Amino acid sequence: MSRSEIPSAGKIAKVTCIGGGVIGAGWAAHFMRAGLDVVVYDTAAERESYLRESLAKAMPALIELGMAPSASPSRVRFTTNFEEALDGANFVQESATENIDAKIALIARIDANTAPDVVIASSSSGFLAAHLRSRAQRGERILIGHPFNPPFLVPLVEIAGGEGARQAAADASAFYRSTGCEVVELEREIDGYIGNRIQYAVLREVLYLMSQGVADLEAIDRAIAAGPAIRWAVMGPSSVFFLGARDPSLYGKFVEGLDREMKSGYMAPASFQPDAELMQAYAEQVKSSIGVDGQARLMALRDVGVVGIRGVLQRARVKLDGSHSR
Amino acid sequence: MSRSEIPSAGKIAKVTCIGGGVIGAGWAAHFMRAGLDVVVYDTAAERESYLRESLAKAMPALIELGMAPSASPSRVRFTTNFEEALDGANFVQESATENIDAKIALIARIDANTAPDVVIASSSSGFLAAHLRSRAQRGERILIGHPFNPPFLVPLVEIAGGEGARQAAADASAFYRSTGCEVVELEREIDGYIGNRIQYAVLREVLYLMSQGVADLEAIDRAIAAGPAIRWAVMGPSSVFFLGARDPSLYGKFVEGLDREMKSGYMAPASFQPDAELMQAYAEQVKSSIGVDGQARLMALRDVGVVGIRGVLQRARVKLDGSHSR
Repeated sequence: MSRSEIPSAGKIAKVTCIGGGVIGAGWAAHFMRAGLDVVVYDTAAERESYLRESLAKAMPALIELGMAPSASPSRVRFTTNFEEALDGANFVQESATENIDAKIALIARIDANTAPDVVIASSSSGFLAAHLRSRAQRGERILIGHPFNPPFLVPLVEIAGGEGARQAAADASAFYRSTGCEVVELEREIDGYIGNRIQYAVLREVLYLMSQGVADLEAIDRAIAAGPAIRWAVMGPSSVFFLGARDPSLYGKFVEGLDREMKSGYMAPASFQPDAELMQAYAEQVKSSIGVDGQARLMALRDVGVVGIRGVLQRARVKLDGSHSR
Repeated sequence: MSRSEIPSAGKIAKVTCIGGGVIGAGWAAHFMRAGLDVVVYDTAAERESYLRESLAKAMPALIELGMAPSASPSRVRFTTNFEEALDGANFVQESATENIDAKIALIARIDANTAPDVVIASSSSGFLAAHLRSRAQRGERILIGHPFNPPFLVPLVEIAGGEGARQAAADASAFYRSTGCEVVELEREIDGYIGNRIQYAVLREVLYLMSQGVADLEAIDRAIAAGPAIRWAVMGPSSVFFLGARDPSLYGKFVEGLDREMKSGYMAPASFQPDAELMQAYAEQVKSSIGVDGQARLMALRDVGVVGIRGVLQRARVKLDGSHSR
C-alpha cells in the first residue's frame, strides 16, 4: 500500500463508529467535537436514543475542552444498515462487545465493505490485531486504537498491531492526534496493551492490601489519588522516580534501592493470587462504600476533574515549552 | 495517656523537623505555609543554606496553594543543637536517612528529649512504627507520618503504626489535616504502606513491558499519565472501575471480567523478577531519555502540574458537594 493511498489526517471527514455502546457512543462524542461527520452503526435500533442521551450528557465537557467551529451533534447520524454506515467512511472505529470470534468475523465484514485505503481501528481492550485481522483481505490496514473510558474525556489512545500495519499505524496516529488525543504506539503487541496491564498490576496490589486488612478500599483509593497518581498524571512513574534522586548522577544508585525494596516485601508476594471469593468481597465493598446513588456524583467528579486536569497540564506545557507538545 | 495530655491540632504552634534533607526541607516548607513556627535540626551545618534555597524555590507553589496569613520563611529556624531544636516543640517530624538502626536510636533520643504529650512522626518510607519505637520510653506517641515527595506539594500523608498509638494517630491526623494534607490511616502496618507498594507494583509491570520490547519508557510514561493516572488522580482505581460497569447492578460481573483478564496474561507473570542488569538498563534509559538537564524542567512541570490539579479537584468537590471534603 503506497503512501498516497492512505488519506492523511486532514483528509478524514467522515468517521464510522461500529457499535453504539458506552465506548462507541463515547468515540462519537469525541469525533463530533473535532468537527467530523460521524455515523454510528448498531444492530439494536434502541441504541439511537442511548447515543443521543450520551451526546447530550457529554456536551458540557466537550464545550469545556473546546469544540471545533463546525462541530455539531446534528452531524452524528445513527443507522442499523451496515453497508450504508460504511459508505464513504474515511476511518472506521470498531467498538463491538469483547468476543474474539465475533470480532474477527465483524472485522472481516468491515474490511469487505470499506474502501481499501481506509484504516480500521478496533477499540478492543486486549485482543491482538494479529488475531483480529486474521480473516480480513487487507489486514495491513487493521489495528488496535484502544481508548480509555470515556474516549471523549481521557486523552490516551494506544495503537497496537502496528508491526503488521506500519503505514496504517502512522496514519491512525496522525489522525487521532489531529482530534486531540495523546497517542502511544506499541512497538510490539501484548495482551492488555500498556494502560490496562498497569491497571491490573495496581488492582492486584490493592486486593492484597485489602486481604491483609491494611485499609479499606475507600482509604486505598484516597491514598493512590492524593499520592502516586497526582504525580503520575503529570509525568508518568519513571519520570517521577527520576526526580526522587537528589542528583541525576546518583540515579543509578537510587534505582538499586527501588529494586531492593521491591524484593524485600514492599509488594504482594508472587504467590498471591486473588480468588473468586476475594474478588466478590472487593466488588461488595466498593458497591456498599460508593453506593448505587454515588455513581452519578462520581461520574460528574470524573468529568469535571479530567477536563480540568487536561487544561492544567496543557497550560503548564505551553508555559514551560512554548508549545502544546510534551 | 489521657486525651487532655495531647495537644489538639489547633494548639500546635511549633513543629520540629529532625533532618534537613529533601524531605525535611520539604516538610519545613509545608508547615511554614500553614503559619507555624518551624525548627529544622541537622548535624550538618551546611544544610542551612540548602534549607533556605529549598524554601525560596518552593515559594511560588506555596503562594499558589495559599499561605496562612501569618506564614513567613522568617519563622523557619535552623539549628545543629538537638536539645534546643526540641525545646518547646508541639509536634516532631523525623526525616533522617533510611537506616533502621540509626532511626531506632534517633527516635529514642527524640523521645527522651521531648515533652511527653508530643506526637513524634517518622517520614520513613517503609520501616514499621513497631520497630522504630522499640527503644523509646513512650512508644505510644510514636508513629509513621509518611509524605510523598515533595511534602509541600503532594497532599497525601499516610499514618501507620496507629494500632500501637491510637490517640497519637487521631491527633496526628487532625493536625496534618489542619495544615491541608490528605490523611490516610492504615488499620494495620505493612512495609511500604500503601502508596509505595502501589508504586512498586507499577514499576514491576513497567519493567516487564520494557523487557518484552513493548515500548520505551517515555511512551510508557505517557500512556500511564494520559490514561489510567489521569482518572486515578481524580478518584483512585476502585472508584474508576466502579464507573466501568454500565449499570451498578452489573458491577459484580464486571469484576469477574477483571479477575479473568488479570489471570489470562494481562499482567507480568508471577515468575518475572527484574534482575540487576534490567534495573540498570532501566536507569540508563530514563537518564538518557530525560537527560540531566531535563530534571529542572520536569520539576517545574511537576510543581505547576500538581498545584494546578489540587486546585481543579478542590473546586470540583466544592461544586459537587458544597464542601472541601470528599
